[in-house]
Amino acid sequence: MPHLTQHEVMTMFLALAVLLGTAKLAGELMQKLGQPSVLGEILAGILLGPTLLGHFRPQIYAALFPSTGAMPIVLETVTTIGVVFFLLTAGLEIDLRSIFRQGKSALLVSFFGVIIPFALGFAAAGAFPRFLGAEAGASRLIFALFVGTALSISALPVIAKILMDLNLIRTEMGTVVMSSAMFDDLVGWILFSMILGMMNAGSHSFGGVKRTILLVAAFTLLALTVVRWLIDKILPFIQAHTSWPGGVLGFIFTLTLAGAAFAEFAGIHAVFGAFITGIAVGESTHLRKRTSEHIHSIVTNVFAPFFFASIGLRTNFVSNFNLGITATVIGVACLGKLLGAGWGAHLGGMDRRTSWGVGLAMNARGAMEMILGLLALQAGLIRETMFVALVVMALFTSLVSAPAIHFLLRRRRVLTLKDTVTTKLFLPAMKFRTKDEALQHMCEVAADAVSNAPERFLRLVLERERVVPSGWENSLAVPHARVGGLPHPIVVIGKSEAGIDFDARDGKLSRLIILILTGDNQAQHDLLGDAGEMFSRKEAIDQVLEASTFVELVAALNAPVK
Amino acid sequence: MPHLTQHEVMTMFLALAVLLGTAKLAGELMQKLGQPSVLGEILAGILLGPTLLGHFRPQIYAALFPSTGAMPIVLETVTTIGVVFFLLTAGLEIDLRSIFRQGKSALLVSFFGVIIPFALGFAAAGAFPRFLGAEAGASRLIFALFVGTALSISALPVIAKILMDLNLIRTEMGTVVMSSAMFDDLVGWILFSMILGMMNAGSHSFGGVKRTILLVAAFTLLALTVVRWLIDKILPFIQAHTSWPGGVLGFIFTLTLAGAAFAEFAGIHAVFGAFITGIAVGESTHLRKRTSEHIHSIVTNVFAPFFFASIGLRTNFVSNFNLGITATVIGVACLGKLLGAGWGAHLGGMDRRTSWGVGLAMNARGAMEMILGLLALQAGLIRETMFVALVVMALFTSLVSAPAIHFLLRRRRVLTLKDTVTTKLFLPAMKFRTKDEALQHMCEVAADAVSNAPERFLRLVLERERVVPSGWENSLAVPHARVGGLPHPIVVIGKSEAGIDFDARDGKLSRLIILILTGDNQAQHDLLGDAGEMFSRKEAIDQVLEASTFVELVAALNAPVK
Repeated sequence: MPHLTQHEVMTMFLALAVLLGTAKLAGELMQKLGQPSVLGEILAGILLGPTLLGHFRPQIYAALFPSTGAMPIVLETVTTIGVVFFLLTAGLEIDLRSIFRQGKSALLVSFFGVIIPFALGFAAAGAFPRFLGAEAGASRLIFALFVGTALSISALPVIAKILMDLNLIRTEMGTVVMSSAMFDDLVGWILFSMILGMMNAGSHSFGGVKRTILLVAAFTLLALTVVRWLIDKILPFIQAHTSWPGGVLGFIFTLTLAGAAFAEFAGIHAVFGAFITGIAVGESTHLRKRTSEHIHSIVTNVFAPFFFASIGLRTNFVSNFNLGITATVIGVACLGKLLGAGWGAHLGGMDRRTSWGVGLAMNARGAMEMILGLLALQAGLIRETMFVALVVMALFTSLVSAPAIHFLLRRRRVLTLKDTVTTKLFLPAMKFRTKDEALQHMCEVAADAVSNAPERFLRLVLERERVVPSGWENSLAVPHARVGGLPHPIVVIGKSEAGIDFDARDGKLSRLIILILTGDNQAQHDLLGDAGEMFSRKEAIDQVLEASTFVELVAALNAPVK
Repeated sequence: MPHLTQHEVMTMFLALAVLLGTAKLAGELMQKLGQPSVLGEILAGILLGPTLLGHFRPQIYAALFPSTGAMPIVLETVTTIGVVFFLLTAGLEIDLRSIFRQGKSALLVSFFGVIIPFALGFAAAGAFPRFLGAEAGASRLIFALFVGTALSISALPVIAKILMDLNLIRTEMGTVVMSSAMFDDLVGWILFSMILGMMNAGSHSFGGVKRTILLVAAFTLLALTVVRWLIDKILPFIQAHTSWPGGVLGFIFTLTLAGAAFAEFAGIHAVFGAFITGIAVGESTHLRKRTSEHIHSIVTNVFAPFFFASIGLRTNFVSNFNLGITATVIGVACLGKLLGAGWGAHLGGMDRRTSWGVGLAMNARGAMEMILGLLALQAGLIRETMFVALVVMALFTSLVSAPAIHFLLRRRRVLTLKDTVTTKLFLPAMKFRTKDEALQHMCEVAADAVSNAPERFLRLVLERERVVPSGWENSLAVPHARVGGLPHPIVVIGKSEAGIDFDARDGKLSRLIILILTGDNQAQHDLLGDAGEMFSRKEAIDQVLEASTFVELVAALNAPVK
């Protein structure tokens, strides 16, 4: 029986450590720049792959990712499992009911947002297949269908992140965009699975294209109706009669693996089975939020990065970069999505500016295009130049979405307490006995930070304090004031061991005092909202009270106890 | 480059689904029988392996787990990653400080609990190596060292489970046993890694045995001192400046993979590197409980079962079963541990009965013996008969520990609300307006269940109610009484939409009423304690209030919101 040698096991763990470490580091850097972390994970792969490491340090590259022996199989196993589990979480996020609840607007945005880019992509690819990187032996029809599909899927997680950052997710525009993107995902994957079936029909032993399409249709239909209903009935039993959360996790992962196996059996890729399983499980009202949190946190943070980083390992992104193909793909993709989704939104009754916003949001692509591209590359449908063009298109559209919407709708990022704290404005051991003394000192510190006179700050804070006392519950007080002409918001965080009377709702002394001074109402609204949400639980306040250094304070604000 | 075929990807997901599904099912069944779930996971592997499926349905077995092509590498990749991540969680559970805090007793129990079984195993194996299943070419010294080590490691997770079930974990005996078992783990693994280094010294290309021992010693020392200190300094920075929990999870898993790679590089197995990394990370006071929960739930419930089920796939447990070897291994293992740990406890000042209890608890073995056995089998040190004997010994000692302690110390399992509820005793929609009406009805239902007169129940409950009103906070009331002669505890759970006044501490009406009637004080203490712990959070009460069917009720009690 083939067996991993000690050297191969070492290489496996070293390669995985380097991949994960680099991917997470680059992902976090991207997030600091306000971009989705998946961009960083892909860039990490390009860095470690043939493009850079393989080009400049071929020996290190060959030692880390050998192309012979068992290592290619090892890496393929890990990345395949990674992407299958990633599609499970993508499926869990889809909410079928919300799609139908949104009604006309969402349906119009989804419909035109899919059909127009599909038609444009289909036409362009049908007209110029060789120019757009069709593989020599590929069928023109299948290639055109593939390009149409690849240009019509939006990236649900990227869109969700952008809308959240811009505080648009709970607006009408936000819900319409989210529902439409979910619908896009579902339709796009079904389309793609059909194409994959057509592509593979000749090459595998199970049977023809009719069989594949029949199996995929039957699987999707059954999974989203009967199986979905069954899961909803079975979940409470599992939660009642098995260990928590082991039983329900085992059930979900077993179903996902079985769904993945069935999809491969049907002649399409495992990820489709995992995605549909995820939707069927996620629809159950009995699925606990904590269960999906557990799955989500490990899968998106540990398993998915292996896959995304591996994209960059596949090919050389410099030598396979073709400006003509890439520009065409980006142009057709953006044009189709902006016109299609924007037009749908306009037909649904939105004003012109918001409609463009919908188009821009739906234009963000991501993981799905890359997965599709990779499968098409492996199946011999497209050449590497087209694969690189698709990856670049996905990266580009994700990158420009947020700034473009920002510019169009004049939305800015929501302010949070974490953004505003600085070392100078953290007072970990205040010794004052009275509210007035404490506030005076805090205002002095604040005024110092903007070279301003403290008296005005204090007067405004105390005025506000007379209207509504700023003591909240559980030892927290949040004095605040609007100070006209302030260049940026100032938040001073003070801690008092003994506690100070801020006339709190629960009568307790306040030990955590957060002074919020802002120049405008919007910033004040943001920061008070952030404090209210973050400190709704006593444990979150305690966590800040335990912080004695500035780093511990930021850690507590960055990841509050929920 | 070698590549997985579509058929291989299908087989991979099918095999993983079957392994996981069977392992979880068997694991849950074992838990129902009060046994650790890992026993079920191993039995699932024996069921699916050469012993049963391979014997009776060889074609299905060969299709699911082919021994040629890429599939053996795929399975080895998944199970190796599974066991490495499992050792990470095992390491996270070790608390070095608590070991030293326990002082003399723990040190004596650890020391004698390791040295006596080690000495007995070493002597037996040194005297009769061939009889005990040493491989033909194996060194007698290394074989004797191996057997000594394999018999001296206790199973921390199994012991923790047994002590918790018997409500012993917070007693002096419990803390001494836990600390000693941790120490055993650490010492046993270091010993074993040395032996592995000696074993591999000839066979791999990196260098001699001195180099391995030096590297292992340096790695362990550095990881538990400098690296541990560094991690403690770095963690707050990561929690402050990266996304939560992605950054910290990425950091921990990258470190673990790097530690695993280093251990392989040093000439020992990857699991040792992951284990030591887990200890170093777990020691940090900045590691959040939620972070380890996330890791723990997915790793122990999804990844570890792949490994444990794969143990049964390795060999035929019937044809390789040798009664002589197995009986000897079990006899020496039990004798050594009981005498050693028991004697240590006695020297530490415990009475005779408790000392025997400590010996019995420390006698539980588990995953570690199997991992050691597997590595020794793969390294050509032991024959399959010895491997089977070690697995059976681990299963046997785990199985008998809890009943034996139960018998010796007359401890019984702690009662929980979940154990006592039945469909008949769940009243999802009570319409009563007053406390007296509600209690009268609930007492009638309770009396009916044991064919008793309700008047006495009601009188006792109301008497108790006059002393202390039974309304707790957040719409919960827990009326209760001790009823002499009751054959078993009765818990009636009633819900009232409108709410009933039970004179609650927070003045609210009670909508969830839990009537607890017990024959003895101990059961009452258990059940009130369970209610107090479970319903300390409002969300847990709300979850029960949302339950409209009996299954939903049990699900809410089984997995309360924490």
